[in-house]
Amino acid sequence: MPKEGITPREKDYSQWYLDIVKNADLADYAEVVRGCIVFKPTGYAIWEGIQSGLDQRIKATGHVNAYFPLLIPKSFLMREAEHVEGFAPEVAEVTRGGGEELAEPYVIRPTSETIIGYFYAKWIRSWRDLPLLINQWANVVRWEMRTRPFLRTAEFLWQEGHTVHVDEADAERETLLVLHDIYADFVEKELAVPVIRGLKTEKEKFPGALRSYCIEAMMQDGRALQAGTSHNLGQNFAKAFNITYTDQNNTVQHAWTTSWGVSTRLIGALIMAHSDDEGLVIPPRLAPTQVVVVPICKNDTERRLVMDAIDRITAGWKGRLRFKIDDRDNLTPGYKFNEWELKGIPIRVEVGPKDVEKGSVAVARRDVPGKAGKSFVPQEGLTERLEALLAEIQQALYDRALAFRAERTADVNSYEELKQQVERGFARCYWAGSDEDEKRIQDETRATIRCIPLDQSGVPGTCVYTGKEATQQVIFARAY
Amino acid sequence: MPKEGITPREKDYSQWYLDIVKNADLADYAEVVRGCIVFKPTGYAIWEGIQSGLDQRIKATGHVNAYFPLLIPKSFLMREAEHVEGFAPEVAEVTRGGGEELAEPYVIRPTSETIIGYFYAKWIRSWRDLPLLINQWANVVRWEMRTRPFLRTAEFLWQEGHTVHVDEADAERETLLVLHDIYADFVEKELAVPVIRGLKTEKEKFPGALRSYCIEAMMQDGRALQAGTSHNLGQNFAKAFNITYTDQNNTVQHAWTTSWGVSTRLIGALIMAHSDDEGLVIPPRLAPTQVVVVPICKNDTERRLVMDAIDRITAGWKGRLRFKIDDRDNLTPGYKFNEWELKGIPIRVEVGPKDVEKGSVAVARRDVPGKAGKSFVPQEGLTERLEALLAEIQQALYDRALAFRAERTADVNSYEELKQQVERGFARCYWAGSDEDEKRIQDETRATIRCIPLDQSGVPGTCVYTGKEATQQVIFARAY
Repeated sequence: MPKEGITPREKDYSQWYLDIVKNADLADYAEVVRGCIVFKPTGYAIWEGIQSGLDQRIKATGHVNAYFPLLIPKSFLMREAEHVEGFAPEVAEVTRGGGEELAEPYVIRPTSETIIGYFYAKWIRSWRDLPLLINQWANVVRWEMRTRPFLRTAEFLWQEGHTVHVDEADAERETLLVLHDIYADFVEKELAVPVIRGLKTEKEKFPGALRSYCIEAMMQDGRALQAGTSHNLGQNFAKAFNITYTDQNNTVQHAWTTSWGVSTRLIGALIMAHSDDEGLVIPPRLAPTQVVVVPICKNDTERRLVMDAIDRITAGWKGRLRFKIDDRDNLTPGYKFNEWELKGIPIRVEVGPKDVEKGSVAVARRDVPGKAGKSFVPQEGLTERLEALLAEIQQALYDRALAFRAERTADVNSYEELKQQVERGFARCYWAGSDEDEKRIQDETRATIRCIPLDQSGVPGTCVYTGKEATQQVIFARAY
Repeated sequence: MPKEGITPREKDYSQWYLDIVKNADLADYAEVVRGCIVFKPTGYAIWEGIQSGLDQRIKATGHVNAYFPLLIPKSFLMREAEHVEGFAPEVAEVTRGGGEELAEPYVIRPTSETIIGYFYAKWIRSWRDLPLLINQWANVVRWEMRTRPFLRTAEFLWQEGHTVHVDEADAERETLLVLHDIYADFVEKELAVPVIRGLKTEKEKFPGALRSYCIEAMMQDGRALQAGTSHNLGQNFAKAFNITYTDQNNTVQHAWTTSWGVSTRLIGALIMAHSDDEGLVIPPRLAPTQVVVVPICKNDTERRLVMDAIDRITAGWKGRLRFKIDDRDNLTPGYKFNEWELKGIPIRVEVGPKDVEKGSVAVARRDVPGKAGKSFVPQEGLTERLEALLAEIQQALYDRALAFRAERTADVNSYEELKQQVERGFARCYWAGSDEDEKRIQDETRATIRCIPLDQSGVPGTCVYTGKEATQQVIFARAY
């Protein structure tokens, strides 16, 4: 049953999303700061979970964190031709400081290739200094015209990796390592969202990159969401900022660099991949609270009895489960159920006087609303049972998202079929078109090539648009 | 013996500090971004340790994290009279966005009381919403004239807590809880730096606060460093931003707010409290690497023998010690010793062929340089021994800093004595002077009242400057 305040997905998916953000108390519009939002505690806690899971993988693959200045001399942006074209129109400029007009304005970083490139050029001398593998957790600002909480905001939070290598092969290895072992692994295992790993077309690649790789996820309206990108920047930034090293033969060479990032947009992906008309659904591994315990009692005697039992039941949970006991005495159980459903807590445990008597508790799964997700289980062995159930829910969410994507993905063999398919999901097709063809299709269908999947059959076919022989398939979809 | 590249403390303390920052590879000057630095990986890793220790304490005391916009409408700063006077002269202003002139400029947050106050006014309705206990990890910008890595930079990283309460007593309780249980506890236990907890004078308090509390630490040149501040803001910001709530009698009341912060300046405190003429000294609890293992071998046969032994020795260390095996084969042991001393790793373990034979290793303490800190210990039970030694070093650093502070602190009974004492450390004295007296003393001695310690004898005395009867003692010192 849809909840008050939440527009059903079927009726208006876009409004449903905003209703979830609002009712689960994830963010607030910062109407006084153009295009910005406040990450409220509930929303920020999800970001903290994302940070922790990513940071662990970033470090496990040999990277270290550092922090570079927020402000970038405006002239730095201009040094790489494609880069300036991509970012100059959407920067915020600092023109005054300490009450005085600045000789050269700064821009607030929209991304940090340029300022980091400047320092790398200073630091790197020899092949022994390479690879240089640094990541930064930071805020960035892009003066976006239309904003949507988490998905597109003027200021957002992200991590940006910036690495330097001796040659193209090593840069490419890094770019793909990040794509597979950090991004895809994290999004699939922690966010429980299956992704397609692929290469961006020339039209869609990062301004200044040689090649951009991405992971693309499907949302519940069939649209794609780019969940992470990893760029082999070639020698473009190395040449613009003169990042050179002396190789083993004592020759000075331009280095090869990469950059890669994921942002608070992942919170939007999490919401749109799993949530339902009852509210937010958070995958257990990222849930700041995994289990909420609600006492059911009519009077003080029952309350004492039930709270004693809850203390006993939860005694061994610390360090094993992230839980909360909702003992607020001014709210009904019904009100609390509603609130925790809205907020997406994976498991609700109810304890009433009858449960105490029987040595049982009621357990409700958030991912299976209503009676179907509720069961009565013994208090004995509950901790292990809940741990297992959390793992089961995590897997169930992933499986459901995977099945949904399979159902909404189709091979298309004509432009007509493509047009129809992008109304409901991903269209996979052979492609040998040009940038202009891609642009024309976008104008006509609002769909773009999300990626050239890394996973290809190898069998050639006929381009869906030009009719030419094509050696590869691509995914067309409308995207966030 | 002083190291190459490091000016001895006795000769030039200020240069010594810069030499440590440079040689331990903690930061780089961002000469192209006014007043900014790059937090290099080694320096940033210390900040990550600080964040983790603080965040744990912040959450354990009931606070949650959130994130508010970087940009603040300039007019917001103006709403609180003292606040605008304190911060307006040192802000960076964003006047252009997306290529257009903005109707109203934004400032980059120098601190977030105003923008957060705006949202709190929207969110808070009833006494049931209070206390509201939120913390933010963020970057801030203050257009400082003179910069010094970590101690004073235009952009720095910090946490800022912002809380709302029903009355003065609750706001005061919070302010002191943060001072004692978060800040003093963290700095003393993790940074191993003893602090004096006190109240700021009117002249030194935070612009817009009712009362500012602080923790003050002594550096090795006898100067004070303010290591954290916690402000009871009274109703000043609540009135400026109209933060009100309906109390239990259904009356609308202005709330009481607090704010509190510590910053990357703590890295400066850590350096200046413990390091020596050999380089950085990091307290074990904050050391990203606690133990470095250096193999000593002359040829490949020895190398295999020694590396096998090291693998065996370190097999059980994971999860118990943060360690690194320095197996670089292009550098001599001597070079490595020097590097890890410079970088302040608390313990060095050396393993050579003779050690393998004898079943022992050599262990060198960073806090006791030279032979005195080196010993030979059996491989058996080494893990436990190293764990105990790390705890011992942590305590030794604290004890040494405490003894140093005691030696450099004196009660003074005349202005002449005060002038002499602030040349070498803290001067404790009775005080009944005015803001103007304090200002005059600052002009004449460069010393300020660091705080009115919370710990007072209660016995009245004679003011060191005015000769009036005074009910309290204060600490005068020169400060960073």
